[in-house]
Amino acid sequence: MLVGIIGAGPAGLLLGRLLHRAGIDAVVFESRDRAHVEQRQRAGILEQATVDALRTAGAADRLEREGIAHDGIDLVFDGTAHRVDFLGTTGARVWIYAQTEVVKDLIALRIADGLPLLFDTPVTAVSDLDGRPTIHYGDQTLTCDYIVGCDGFHGITRPLVPGTGYELSFPHSWLGILADAPPMHHELVYAHSRRGFALASMRSPSVSRMYLQVDNGEDPAAWPDDRIWSELARRFGDHQPNRGPITAKSVLPMRAWVAPTLRHGNLFLAGDAGHIVPPTGAKGLNLAVADVVLLAASLAERHRTGSADLLDAYSDSCLRRVWRAEQFSHFMTTTLHVVPGQSEFDTQLQVARLRGIVSSRAAATSLAEEYTGITPAS
Amino acid sequence: MLVGIIGAGPAGLLLGRLLHRAGIDAVVFESRDRAHVEQRQRAGILEQATVDALRTAGAADRLEREGIAHDGIDLVFDGTAHRVDFLGTTGARVWIYAQTEVVKDLIALRIADGLPLLFDTPVTAVSDLDGRPTIHYGDQTLTCDYIVGCDGFHGITRPLVPGTGYELSFPHSWLGILADAPPMHHELVYAHSRRGFALASMRSPSVSRMYLQVDNGEDPAAWPDDRIWSELARRFGDHQPNRGPITAKSVLPMRAWVAPTLRHGNLFLAGDAGHIVPPTGAKGLNLAVADVVLLAASLAERHRTGSADLLDAYSDSCLRRVWRAEQFSHFMTTTLHVVPGQSEFDTQLQVARLRGIVSSRAAATSLAEEYTGITPAS
Repeated sequence: MLVGIIGAGPAGLLLGRLLHRAGIDAVVFESRDRAHVEQRQRAGILEQATVDALRTAGAADRLEREGIAHDGIDLVFDGTAHRVDFLGTTGARVWIYAQTEVVKDLIALRIADGLPLLFDTPVTAVSDLDGRPTIHYGDQTLTCDYIVGCDGFHGITRPLVPGTGYELSFPHSWLGILADAPPMHHELVYAHSRRGFALASMRSPSVSRMYLQVDNGEDPAAWPDDRIWSELARRFGDHQPNRGPITAKSVLPMRAWVAPTLRHGNLFLAGDAGHIVPPTGAKGLNLAVADVVLLAASLAERHRTGSADLLDAYSDSCLRRVWRAEQFSHFMTTTLHVVPGQSEFDTQLQVARLRGIVSSRAAATSLAEEYTGITPAS
Repeated sequence: MLVGIIGAGPAGLLLGRLLHRAGIDAVVFESRDRAHVEQRQRAGILEQATVDALRTAGAADRLEREGIAHDGIDLVFDGTAHRVDFLGTTGARVWIYAQTEVVKDLIALRIADGLPLLFDTPVTAVSDLDGRPTIHYGDQTLTCDYIVGCDGFHGITRPLVPGTGYELSFPHSWLGILADAPPMHHELVYAHSRRGFALASMRSPSVSRMYLQVDNGEDPAAWPDDRIWSELARRFGDHQPNRGPITAKSVLPMRAWVAPTLRHGNLFLAGDAGHIVPPTGAKGLNLAVADVVLLAASLAERHRTGSADLLDAYSDSCLRRVWRAEQFSHFMTTTLHVVPGQSEFDTQLQVARLRGIVSSRAAATSLAEEYTGITPAS
């Protein structure tokens, strides 16, 4: 069996590795160069299931050494911080380890194994999806048994499944920064404030990753460092950020989209090619990993036994999990952000919702289940 | 101490009874006649704390005999019913006993006690709120120590506190019916459907109370009995209503509003005069009872010890509970109703939210806490 994988992000790279370990050949195509792929700033929070998948794939050595376990988060509202305990309520935790590091690890492993990974190789078309699907690149083609689109929201595979999908846009974006400064708190801090949302995350004990809600279309140039630090200080209440040199600054749009199906003939979609979530729930990378774990098992069953049962169930199984994650991400986003023209009634509802979470063990447990991803899938 | 109570709904009547038992005189003014007050169809679900309050007030004899305990509800989505267990998750239950019956019981007790209850007596004005507050009615006046506005959303006291309050309107109403037919299920059934929300409640083992989401401004005359039954049948999936003669039919608007404060000088607001909720969470009557229980205790402390501490904290204490209830009512309303132009994305989010509730014990427990009202107040 030969599988063509389009896209060398975490979904495509992990899928390639899992297939290799199942004795299935795969070629990974990536339109950009290696340096670009290894430097894209993305998510940094791994669910336990994601860590387990990387471990099973033999790709967690550095993660085990450098990853930082988090057993809860802080929610700030009305200027006061309240902890939500994940480990105590659910037994689960999450790990801080940047997606860029996951990608570097998987690329290094694939290269060390001598497996095909084609950088700077844009796929120009795919054809024959209902028969022997074929990847077109440069002036060459590769005919496969299956093609998997791991090429993200802006890739070429997403439009190839029928239907336009389901979309939701948000009236705000995030300004994200990296700073050479110790994190302001040992766990993540999600802040609701009348000035807008803020999030304090981290990349390491000496590098902070911070986010500020800003208007859509905001120009990062309008945010000199001083303005960023003073705005962060105003939104975090009890906690206060440690200042340091800002080494990266960018505006991230927020969008939710779900494909109507993750399959068309012998093309499958995984990760952002099939669904995107607003970043508030930290679900994007974790959903991508869950997709390819299931897809690799399904292709392995097909390869080993000839049965297509798992493969036929792949899209529905993933989409159930995706909609749960969309729901959680939407809940976190709409509870924590202030939208233009928001009424005082809406603000009071948000605060009441946050107060409800931190004042009921059941409500806190429910949030912890969703955040750590241990919620039952159906 | 003399307290003037405006409005002989459950809030005013229960407050009068609690004050009497604390040795405080009160006069209850009601603009309508007794028959009207005893026949107004309102809520029918009592939280345990409401039942306890009525018991403590010695007003629960008939409720104990005729009330029907419910230990959970059914949620219907995608045509399938799922039970949410209140008793098993929280140890709490709710009771079916119509507000009209609560009102009848309290009126009978007040009359039997020979206490002042003035029907057909509209209050035309209140004055001197910062000194000895005075009630004006007909060509007479009554000067009190305190006045309590229990005269609902359309009463005269609501506009007397400063500020306009916080408001939210909904783009849908309920068509409510009473039918001489056995309830379709032994507990309440809340149904999400693409055709709109439906709710099956009951008044007794032989009387059904059913609700259908309809457009705002809908004319009940546009809903002949056959249309109502067939629309109900289409929305309830697994459960199907028992048909019977429809004895009442009306359209209920849905609105949320919260006063900025429940006090102005020596005037206090309680119940719908201070806050209204959409009926989806069944909170209106229960909030009114919680208000007057706290207000009676506060006035009793003032009477007994001279301390105004509780009285001074009344508004803030109530409003914290009110905002929790607004939050829950908003959650139930927006999760279960279909709004005009709703996207498929929004519908999928609603279904994912409902599926999340019934597939996690923590999420179900959190819902049960809010529904039964046992959530901590802060």
